[in-house]
Amino acid sequence: MDELRTAFIEKLHKVASIEDQIIEALPKLASQATMPDLKQGLTTHLEETKNQRQRLSQIFAAHGEPDEATEDVAFSTLLQESDKELGQITDPNLKDAMIIASCQVVEHIEMAKYGTLVEWAKTLDDSDSEKLLKDTLDEEGNADKTLSKAATGGMFKDGANDMAA
Amino acid sequence: MDELRTAFIEKLHKVASIEDQIIEALPKLASQATMPDLKQGLTTHLEETKNQRQRLSQIFAAHGEPDEATEDVAFSTLLQESDKELGQITDPNLKDAMIIASCQVVEHIEMAKYGTLVEWAKTLDDSDSEKLLKDTLDEEGNADKTLSKAATGGMFKDGANDMAA
Repeated sequence: MDELRTAFIEKLHKVASIEDQIIEALPKLASQATMPDLKQGLTTHLEETKNQRQRLSQIFAAHGEPDEATEDVAFSTLLQESDKELGQITDPNLKDAMIIASCQVVEHIEMAKYGTLVEWAKTLDDSDSEKLLKDTLDEEGNADKTLSKAATGGMFKDGANDMAA
Repeated sequence: MDELRTAFIEKLHKVASIEDQIIEALPKLASQATMPDLKQGLTTHLEETKNQRQRLSQIFAAHGEPDEATEDVAFSTLLQESDKELGQITDPNLKDAMIIASCQVVEHIEMAKYGTLVEWAKTLDDSDSEKLLKDTLDEEGNADKTLSKAATGGMFKDGANDMAA
């Protein structure tokens, strides 16, 4: 169980780095998006993400652990690659579609990671952390659904850029 | 639309590389797993993954494109990092939990990627590819659910290693 607790805290530090990186990336993505719904969605998700990062700080505090982020190298690589890909696209509809695709990969990674953390918190009988992590897990699921709606409703359809009108 | 078709094919080549890498990684993960249900699940998913790779070959053939894989660098990094992490763990229960956690990240990445590809195939009016990609998407969702069951039912519980008995 001690080894699980250590692994739990390590995973939390890595997820903190993921949230930090997303907080940095979202404004840049929003500025590259064209569809108003997408732009707005990314801005809203930024506020949500800051709140999710706060929840991690609360968990670190409760565990007497430093509120630190450990780089998740695979995640940094993912963001770098997405950024490179986006830079090569000129068509605004395709750029929106690529932003949605990248964000959905990010949301799904977070869903998997928070799903594991909720499960581990439960095993560790840490119901306070479990609740905080579950709140974030639910938000990530909703963010993914919002992106799916943007993907099916918006891209390459007539009047895509007027969706929020 | 031409630009979307090009991006669609590029994404398919990257997903082909992801499937190739998973086909290589699964036997190694199965050999490191302890819980019989998990071992069996990983072996079953290997066969499923080979079939998913075949579907991509079908799509390439239909599009007159070479059946080639383009390395997805972020995904390679993810597998390398997981492998490094697993190598540091000695406790078999925790190792199983970490294998499940890694596989769920992989499944979620695939769900996001195939979800995008299904949507793009629809936009491109390519119903044959859409159907093949949707079949894989559904399988990835089921694989994730199976892993969730293993995570909630197995780890760190009494008799975890007798689950398949």
